Amino acid sequence: MGTAAAAAADVVIPACAAVGIAFALWQWFLVSKVKVSAYAAAPDNGHHGGPVFRMEDEDEDVGMGGGHDDDEEEGAGDRNVAEARCAEIQSAISVGANSFLFTQYKYLAAFTAIFAVVIFLFLGSVHRFSTDSRPCQYTSGRTCKPALANATFSAIAFLLGAATSAVSGYLGMRIATYANARTTLEARRGIGAAFTTAFRSGAVMGFLLASLGLLVLYGTIKAFGLYYGDDWEGLYESVTGYGLGGSSVALFGRVGGGIYTKAADVGADLVGKVERNIPEDDPRNPAVIADNVGDNVGDIAGMGSDLFGSYAESTCAALFVASISSPGAGHDFAAVAYPLLISAAGLLVCLVTTLLATDMCKVRTVRGVAPALKLQLVVSTVLMTVAALVVSFAALPANFTLFDFGEVKQVKNWHLFFCVAIGLWAGLAIGFTTEYFTSNAYSPVRDVADSCKTGAATNVIFGLALGYKSVIVPVFAIAVSIYVGFTLASIYGIAVAALGMLSTVATGLAIDAYGPISDNAGGIAEMAGMSRRIRQRTDALDAAGNTTAAIGKGFAIGSAALVSLALFGAFVSRAGVADVNVLDPKVFVGLLVGAMLPYWFSAMTMRSVGSAALRMVEEVRRQFAAIPGLMEGRAAPDYARCVRISTDASLREMMPPGALVLLAPLLAGTFFGVRTLAGLLAGALVSGVQIAISASNSGGAWDNAKKYIEAGASDHAKSLGPKGSDAHKAAVIGDTIGDPLKDTSGPSLNILIKLMAVESLVFAPFFAAHGGLIFK
Amino acid sequence: MGTAAAAAADVVIPACAAVGIAFALWQWFLVSKVKVSAYAAAPDNGHHGGPVFRMEDEDEDVGMGGGHDDDEEEGAGDRNVAEARCAEIQSAISVGANSFLFTQYKYLAAFTAIFAVVIFLFLGSVHRFSTDSRPCQYTSGRTCKPALANATFSAIAFLLGAATSAVSGYLGMRIATYANARTTLEARRGIGAAFTTAFRSGAVMGFLLASLGLLVLYGTIKAFGLYYGDDWEGLYESVTGYGLGGSSVALFGRVGGGIYTKAADVGADLVGKVERNIPEDDPRNPAVIADNVGDNVGDIAGMGSDLFGSYAESTCAALFVASISSPGAGHDFAAVAYPLLISAAGLLVCLVTTLLATDMCKVRTVRGVAPALKLQLVVSTVLMTVAALVVSFAALPANFTLFDFGEVKQVKNWHLFFCVAIGLWAGLAIGFTTEYFTSNAYSPVRDVADSCKTGAATNVIFGLALGYKSVIVPVFAIAVSIYVGFTLASIYGIAVAALGMLSTVATGLAIDAYGPISDNAGGIAEMAGMSRRIRQRTDALDAAGNTTAAIGKGFAIGSAALVSLALFGAFVSRAGVADVNVLDPKVFVGLLVGAMLPYWFSAMTMRSVGSAALRMVEEVRRQFAAIPGLMEGRAAPDYARCVRISTDASLREMMPPGALVLLAPLLAGTFFGVRTLAGLLAGALVSGVQIAISASNSGGAWDNAKKYIEAGASDHAKSLGPKGSDAHKAAVIGDTIGDPLKDTSGPSLNILIKLMAVESLVFAPFFAAHGGLIFK
Repeated sequence: MGTAAAAAADVVIPACAAVGIAFALWQWFLVSKVKVSAYAAAPDNGHHGGPVFRMEDEDEDVGMGGGHDDDEEEGAGDRNVAEARCAEIQSAISVGANSFLFTQYKYLAAFTAIFAVVIFLFLGSVHRFSTDSRPCQYTSGRTCKPALANATFSAIAFLLGAATSAVSGYLGMRIATYANARTTLEARRGIGAAFTTAFRSGAVMGFLLASLGLLVLYGTIKAFGLYYGDDWEGLYESVTGYGLGGSSVALFGRVGGGIYTKAADVGADLVGKVERNIPEDDPRNPAVIADNVGDNVGDIAGMGSDLFGSYAESTCAALFVASISSPGAGHDFAAVAYPLLISAAGLLVCLVTTLLATDMCKVRTVRGVAPALKLQLVVSTVLMTVAALVVSFAALPANFTLFDFGEVKQVKNWHLFFCVAIGLWAGLAIGFTTEYFTSNAYSPVRDVADSCKTGAATNVIFGLALGYKSVIVPVFAIAVSIYVGFTLASIYGIAVAALGMLSTVATGLAIDAYGPISDNAGGIAEMAGMSRRIRQRTDALDAAGNTTAAIGKGFAIGSAALVSLALFGAFVSRAGVADVNVLDPKVFVGLLVGAMLPYWFSAMTMRSVGSAALRMVEEVRRQFAAIPGLMEGRAAPDYARCVRISTDASLREMMPPGALVLLAPLLAGTFFGVRTLAGLLAGALVSGVQIAISASNSGGAWDNAKKYIEAGASDHAKSLGPKGSDAHKAAVIGDTIGDPLKDTSGPSLNILIKLMAVESLVFAPFFAAHGGLIFK
Repeated sequence: MGTAAAAAADVVIPACAAVGIAFALWQWFLVSKVKVSAYAAAPDNGHHGGPVFRMEDEDEDVGMGGGHDDDEEEGAGDRNVAEARCAEIQSAISVGANSFLFTQYKYLAAFTAIFAVVIFLFLGSVHRFSTDSRPCQYTSGRTCKPALANATFSAIAFLLGAATSAVSGYLGMRIATYANARTTLEARRGIGAAFTTAFRSGAVMGFLLASLGLLVLYGTIKAFGLYYGDDWEGLYESVTGYGLGGSSVALFGRVGGGIYTKAADVGADLVGKVERNIPEDDPRNPAVIADNVGDNVGDIAGMGSDLFGSYAESTCAALFVASISSPGAGHDFAAVAYPLLISAAGLLVCLVTTLLATDMCKVRTVRGVAPALKLQLVVSTVLMTVAALVVSFAALPANFTLFDFGEVKQVKNWHLFFCVAIGLWAGLAIGFTTEYFTSNAYSPVRDVADSCKTGAATNVIFGLALGYKSVIVPVFAIAVSIYVGFTLASIYGIAVAALGMLSTVATGLAIDAYGPISDNAGGIAEMAGMSRRIRQRTDALDAAGNTTAAIGKGFAIGSAALVSLALFGAFVSRAGVADVNVLDPKVFVGLLVGAMLPYWFSAMTMRSVGSAALRMVEEVRRQFAAIPGLMEGRAAPDYARCVRISTDASLREMMPPGALVLLAPLLAGTFFGVRTLAGLLAGALVSGVQIAISASNSGGAWDNAKKYIEAGASDHAKSLGPKGSDAHKAAVIGDTIGDPLKDTSGPSLNILIKLMAVESLVFAPFFAAHGGLIFK
């Protein structure tokens, strides 16, 4: 394979990214055809963040506080009123989300600037800031660029990764806030139209993020290549900074956004549903706008940054290993770019899969929603398997060698196909397991709902047990992928298995983003006082969305496990460690302490949610007591104060867990050396995976157990309900406990394990040169 | 060091064990001086397990159901009535506990018989059941006994260990049921007398178990030595079967007892406290006897077997390593017997420490209880440090070598002193951390109590976060012990660090058993309708007991972590593995799956408690509905049915988790080989420690947060209470959730990690010879 293949790769990668972006824009255009009244979202209504509803509309047949029992569609006049309201609410949510993200990104800009300097100083110090070229580490006989250049380019790559991640999160949020009111309004036309709008909006996000990530990474490699020329070791070493940047921003996005959304959600529920007995998303609840903002900044922006980070990191790990293996030594760009080609093929596969849901087999009934989403998973996996086979044979030489911890491993192109395929199918297995444990169509969630009969305590006990049990299959799926990947192609095999799992990320993100969009659509329907039938439709979308959100989390954690193992392997290679022996006390101590870190981290994030929620509860109670007529729907609450409480709490509280994750590898590597750090990473990985999976599935199960009782769709469900029954109250308590587990601490752990590994990889030359001040 | 020192060891070890037993019997004699009316416990009242209270006593001033607001001590007539009642209740508890343990032990007898055969067959097959002697594995040039002999003696040692563990559990239960009513009656004389009775009874258990364990192990070594003669490798290899026997019984004791006690407790609380609003331990509650039986079979018998198992295993691990090191090669019995000598010295130290509480500095006030228990920990640690120094210099040669994974490590006697001391002080650090996080004298529990203001959900969120946070210090304490022990003296250092932590086990067990005894005393006081002042005294004892129970669990898990690491090291040595490299996919897959096992196990045990509790709830509700006059205290409930539900549930439900723990290492070793098994053990260890500590501390904190609100001893506590307030109800939910965490799944995990390791050690020759059918 020579220059022809390399030239083909240089065409295919940017072309696929461009197609992905074009497809995303087309989907956006289709969504934008749903009109939300143009003038309602006037800036003076929204920007100060104050009350945005005309609560005094006495002429309407649906009062703010009363039940809406009309089963008729609204007439033309009501329709305009509803549209105007939806627009107002959408604007309030959008303003809140925008202002939060801008404030957060201001902090992050300061952080990334400082951290880029730290990277430069640490890596520059490896060869004492010398500007002399030096012999390459892996390819003997060649000369590589100075360490100072790697320090500079790593810092630049870090900034690029951080910026791309921030842009991804921001775009996701914009799209989601743009889509939610449109989904509500489309629900008037029927379940199919609403589903298509929500799903298309998810696809916009999925394709934009995946394409953007691919394009920026490709561009970075090409741009850095202008300086590095022949030194591919240095080039791909520097590029790993991109992954670190992406995950650093993702960490704060997940933690900050997670605290924001759950402080508001828990606070709103505790006073609204439990004390005041008003429905979820009732506009009388002062925390309701904060809650909806949270869905967009936490579940959408955070998830977007998270998956972008996984994608960037697994690509970087694979590129790094390829660069120090025979494809790198032989300067075979098509073979080195294999990970990028897999991702490019994934974009095309996802495009076809998306059209299946939006155009070919449209959803027409409530029952059709969940199968349509499941079909997306299956079809994208099957098609991608074929695509991976084609790419493997087209891009890779039939035989080549890979770097394997100082030794050399012979591999064939079909070995790598198997690695990609096993990751892909392991992802599907994780997805289906998650669905089984969190959907209320199956017995696990129904058993949890049933345990609500004896109160909140048994509900929590059963829910925790369900979460623990749901770990078994995903862990075996990950273990098989690791075994196959590692055995066939060492660390490179793990990295491409991770990429295989993430190759369908555009579809994964689409069905995942669909969840919070539907959730918000339901919230807007409730707040805008729309009819019961419309709310039933948005509720049906939302229930399926809870499951897809859990599936998305399953993918996120599964891929994070593989990615962080790949990064771990790359770190060990780069640090020049030949083995990580558990019988070495330095390693074992790292392993034990590493396994503790996810607990420490979870303790911080859960407490943060708890205390922010307490402040929110006090504010909501205060408003109900202080604002006359609020409960009766005659006065408007002060939404802005609640938004401010969530914003302040999340910005303040994201610092300590962020510092823990970023400092732990730096301290371990600097003071205790690379072996302890290697143990720390392995420990955090194997322990974090379990907590992350169990936390997100327990939370998802509690949420859907509550929805199962509320929907009352079977005799069993009816015997537990209706809303307000003792069993339902117990279910609400479980749901509230699950909130920080499934949306704050659980998903943040993905980033903990990845970020610690990629940070270690980037700083590996420093640790190898100067680390281990205490245990040398 | 020669035969003189060996002869001294042969005198000192049995002598100390004899002193310990004599001391236990003397304490028992002192407890027995408290008289419980002799004839009340007539067999026909107790044996059928039916109603034991004369509920129709209309002439009494204190009805069964009403509040007892008299603050006067009872007169002489009441006193006899109270004594008779206490005797009756004690008898009912004792009958229930006896019958459960006998049934359980019948199952266990069948299991141990079968498993002994399995051990014989697996180990016998290593050399195809040949009766020929073979060259020794570690001491070159010597001849060792045939593998068939090791198979036979391992099976015998296994049976002895199992029998000793069962006897230990049984004796603990007998003592506790003997002591609880006596403690109640002594509470009439004041807090000091009641404390002394409860504490003395704990000491009886502590000294009997520790002395018995030492004596049987010593006797086994001497008896096996008659056959083995010069072959110390084979001798100490076989002796490890003793540890396996001890822990196998402990597993079923902990799991079965844990399910029993929590099914009854949760069931009783859910109907009694939550639905019927009657106090804890109210005799109208049909599950109340089952609940009290549970305290004795779960917390006492289970804990006794658990700590006995840790003690036996750490000794076996240390003996095994010593036997293949220079003391073994040189046949220096005093040096090989060092672990036994440390334990023997520990018995004397604990004896002195116990006298401090019972005779020298008696407790006189409620406030004095917690400090007196804390003083026990500190004094025993300080004295033991001195004793360890003496033993280290007296028993060990100044310089010798230890086996270190195929290499040889030079050590000095003071190195081993440091290993013992670090374990000892790490235990104290764990104890104090546990106290800080679970006692309601400090801010963590008060914050949890405060979060009850906003309901059960925030209570649970804060409690989970507290548990996660409480892991940090213990993990660092264990990590430091491991680092010091491993660096100074390899695996042997870890084993003696574990023994250091366990050397004060007699005191540890005494203060730990004190907890459930006081809890039962309070229950009996309530059931016997004793005055409020007496119940306040037993409540004060009980609150301190919750904290000591958590401390005991902290010791149990800390020592389990060290023990299982020592066993892991011994397994690796015996299996002939030179390193356990995390970068080997076989190892990493084991690590990941091993880290998942504690979750799988916890899912099983928690679900078991949940479903058994649901059955209990149904039965209790049925009785309240079906028995006329029960709620008014005019009719007696059917306690026996509740006892039967708990018994049946626990016997049935202990099988699957037991099978998981016993089969996992066998399957991993047989099919995937020793490296995967090594990974599995390391993963289970580092992950299990975290869950076990966090579960038991979350549970302890919830329990004491509830007690804090109930006691209302400060303005803050009063603002949350009184009993029956919303905050109190939220606290009760937290307490109920904590029950299975702290008393079933959490403490059982100690045994999971130890038992998997010791089983691997015993079967190591088989795995090394025939294991790895799939990954050879």
